[in-house]
Amino acid sequence: MLMEHSVNNPSRIPEESLGPSDWPALRRLGHRMLDDMFAYLQGLRQRAAWQPVPEAVAAELEQLLPLDPMPEEDVYRQFQRTILPYPLGNIHPRFWGWVMGGGTPLTMLAEMLAAGMNPNMANASHATALVELQVLKWLKALLGMPPEAGGILVSGGSVANLTALAVARTAGAGFDVRQEGLAMGGRRLTLYGSTEMHSSIQRAVEVLGLGNQALRRIPVDSRYQIRLDGLSQAIEADLADGCQPLAVIGNAGTVNTGAIDPLGQLADIAAEYGLWFHVDGAFGALANLVPELQPKLAGLERADSLAFDLHKWPYLPFEAGCTLVRDREIHRRTFVVRPDYLESDERGVAAGPVWFSDYGIQLSRGFRALKVWMAFKSYGVHKLSRLIAQNVAQAHYLSDQIERLPSLELLAPAPLNIVCFRYNPGITSSEKLNRLNHELLLRLQESGAAVLSSTMLEGRYALRCAITNHRSRREDFDLLIRQVVMIGNQLVEQGWTAGAADA
Amino acid sequence: MLMEHSVNNPSRIPEESLGPSDWPALRRLGHRMLDDMFAYLQGLRQRAAWQPVPEAVAAELEQLLPLDPMPEEDVYRQFQRTILPYPLGNIHPRFWGWVMGGGTPLTMLAEMLAAGMNPNMANASHATALVELQVLKWLKALLGMPPEAGGILVSGGSVANLTALAVARTAGAGFDVRQEGLAMGGRRLTLYGSTEMHSSIQRAVEVLGLGNQALRRIPVDSRYQIRLDGLSQAIEADLADGCQPLAVIGNAGTVNTGAIDPLGQLADIAAEYGLWFHVDGAFGALANLVPELQPKLAGLERADSLAFDLHKWPYLPFEAGCTLVRDREIHRRTFVVRPDYLESDERGVAAGPVWFSDYGIQLSRGFRALKVWMAFKSYGVHKLSRLIAQNVAQAHYLSDQIERLPSLELLAPAPLNIVCFRYNPGITSSEKLNRLNHELLLRLQESGAAVLSSTMLEGRYALRCAITNHRSRREDFDLLIRQVVMIGNQLVEQGWTAGAADA
Repeated sequence: MLMEHSVNNPSRIPEESLGPSDWPALRRLGHRMLDDMFAYLQGLRQRAAWQPVPEAVAAELEQLLPLDPMPEEDVYRQFQRTILPYPLGNIHPRFWGWVMGGGTPLTMLAEMLAAGMNPNMANASHATALVELQVLKWLKALLGMPPEAGGILVSGGSVANLTALAVARTAGAGFDVRQEGLAMGGRRLTLYGSTEMHSSIQRAVEVLGLGNQALRRIPVDSRYQIRLDGLSQAIEADLADGCQPLAVIGNAGTVNTGAIDPLGQLADIAAEYGLWFHVDGAFGALANLVPELQPKLAGLERADSLAFDLHKWPYLPFEAGCTLVRDREIHRRTFVVRPDYLESDERGVAAGPVWFSDYGIQLSRGFRALKVWMAFKSYGVHKLSRLIAQNVAQAHYLSDQIERLPSLELLAPAPLNIVCFRYNPGITSSEKLNRLNHELLLRLQESGAAVLSSTMLEGRYALRCAITNHRSRREDFDLLIRQVVMIGNQLVEQGWTAGAADA
Repeated sequence: MLMEHSVNNPSRIPEESLGPSDWPALRRLGHRMLDDMFAYLQGLRQRAAWQPVPEAVAAELEQLLPLDPMPEEDVYRQFQRTILPYPLGNIHPRFWGWVMGGGTPLTMLAEMLAAGMNPNMANASHATALVELQVLKWLKALLGMPPEAGGILVSGGSVANLTALAVARTAGAGFDVRQEGLAMGGRRLTLYGSTEMHSSIQRAVEVLGLGNQALRRIPVDSRYQIRLDGLSQAIEADLADGCQPLAVIGNAGTVNTGAIDPLGQLADIAAEYGLWFHVDGAFGALANLVPELQPKLAGLERADSLAFDLHKWPYLPFEAGCTLVRDREIHRRTFVVRPDYLESDERGVAAGPVWFSDYGIQLSRGFRALKVWMAFKSYGVHKLSRLIAQNVAQAHYLSDQIERLPSLELLAPAPLNIVCFRYNPGITSSEKLNRLNHELLLRLQESGAAVLSSTMLEGRYALRCAITNHRSRREDFDLLIRQVVMIGNQLVEQGWTAGAADA
């Protein structure tokens, strides 16, 4: 074997490729996969929202390094038997855990086309790159950014926030932070957002070397919106302390409750102190597509930078997020690195209007723009807007049902698409309620009927229903309520409220 | 319209979804797309390696925000007319610019399956996540990492390097850098690699707040390998200067020439000074799959962290890279953030052996593991190994041809898969040769015959041929040589060597 492919004796090598040995056979298998996936997606509603991976299946997935080829058909059969039946479940109509998107049959096809073409979206001398530029223009228009703003598609909200805050660091450090780093900077650069900020902001601040301690967490009011008085006080205190305030971070849709900070007033405060204004709009920014919801987001259009996902509310498959930066030049200045082997040209393959790699942390980049392009064109923004409104209406519907039932308790306002509640058969011990609802959540998930996740709100364990699901119907929420009450009642019968079951 | 989807009056809303209105019709379109893409991929060799986007096509791609839906068939026709014919070209058999992968028909199908299932790979209570764990185990075994090492699939080499160096920062800072940040750290944390390091290392160091100045670029020898004496001297000088050395970075395949640093000796020096040893093996680490090439990579198995791509040498579609970290605990400690809404559970959807989001910068993550799994199983490691060896043999073949022709000049050793050369009809002015070869490169690209990119080697403009292409055959390199010589001769005839053409 070794002799056959001696790297020093090219002439002895029988040349081969990864093109299939039998094109028609692989094409037939592809058609079968496509039919199977369509049937799978069309039949989602008949499946469990989630089911655990059986031990035997997990064991089958433990496999030695495959040295020799296995026929594609056999590999596919293994996929069908061991992988396809046991997904996370997030594309199911009754999966509302964390904040997930659903994907769609059309965008599944778009991903196939993208992977087939497989362009590298580092530069832009190709039509594929023009698609990303086009998509970015649309997103700017929808979210109040000027057409000349900087922008880039990224893997998701975490990297979108990291990218934006890196730009904020460039803008506000007052020295060449790329060259010098922070060790020599002296003054602490501080950032401000509410206690409800997403963890990806903390991660971004940590990765950037600013330190979690530099992230000031301002208390929220009863609607889980940042307290403006607290914000101003914190900035003043830091200034008095010799810190160098860098950025104000507004939430357009917090992960816990969907609260939207008063963005206009945050913009005012940022302007007053000369700070960068970043908005984390992971899912909430997209509410701007719904005319009725736009007033809640007033001030979004004043953000210096904006991070959001396209794999949550516009329902695209993972991964697709976006960073937009009002000042394109400072965006570019944060990331551009052009060694000799990445020179631009006036003509040829290295020409083109933009190098995307100048605007983010990736150099090689996939064609995630295609699914955005196909979805926006095929569905139209009006339909995406209606579906986002539908999800918000469903959250209102669910809240209403919860408020009507004496055994359920709403734990926070639900201004957008997230509903936090608990089952409460009339007991006062917070600890018992927390244990009860935790067990209820697990049993609900294990039932396969629906998936919620949890959070803590002022010490109270909350069942959390986050609706970014285009497949959900009102009847699904009726079923959820019935199931939650039923499991809750069972737990009461089994003595969980007496604390007996946790002995 | 607004009245129809009032978010406050759920009962008035006619519920809809992004499921197709006509499932059979979209499925039929999907089958057409699949046939078209198979034909496209099978016919790649008959296409130009690259062609510019005609102005009319670019203009057609400029489109207003699509408010209303367009039939999927029409969107697809637009894709076929304006996008598919004008790609970057990197999947063409004669595209050897930068370092690109090719993708394969099978992995195109894998991406379709992944996008259809669309799981979020943040946690691991699903079979899809077990696939990533399995793939990581295989990669560890292939690259000399112990099975218990930390690991995560990422978007590509840039993020892989960033992830690894973030861990190095945790390990070597000597204080809680996540909490405190670098501003208060005082001593400069320094990193060491050769002048041939990839730009993504610089970007990582900058993003991490360490500062480009902290990246010590050690000179290379005539084989473009790091000079060990220079490395030791630089560390000693920094220690004497009060800096705090953090990490030694070895290159397994430099981007300019494919040089592999003496990894074993770098590991010795890192051990001597107690420094983190990171290896950037973007494409080169995968040469470890070829038994004949393993001696060149000796020492790779001693790396504390390793970054590499799967969308270059194992030829998978974008995006797929990987970070492996010997010490799983410090890997996790660098990234884990677990707010209330991301609590693990013993049972249910939030259970499972690992949360991937504890090991990298992304929270939501796509199912990129599936294409790795299907490719490794279907092709088998032996075949991937043979193809990598084939590419190296092709580089040797190309070098040999270049050395045989008096008008071509090899500009650097080609130890792996990258060949740097120039057309030189016997002139001595370096400036003229650079201009001549630059024009030659552009004309070669514009001819559509083949795509190379360029770099500068000690002031000399080099045509750079990087072979990570499973579709290339020996005859393609014969054609390349003929084309380069022909265009070079034309330029001489047109007076480029006299300097007339650049007046």
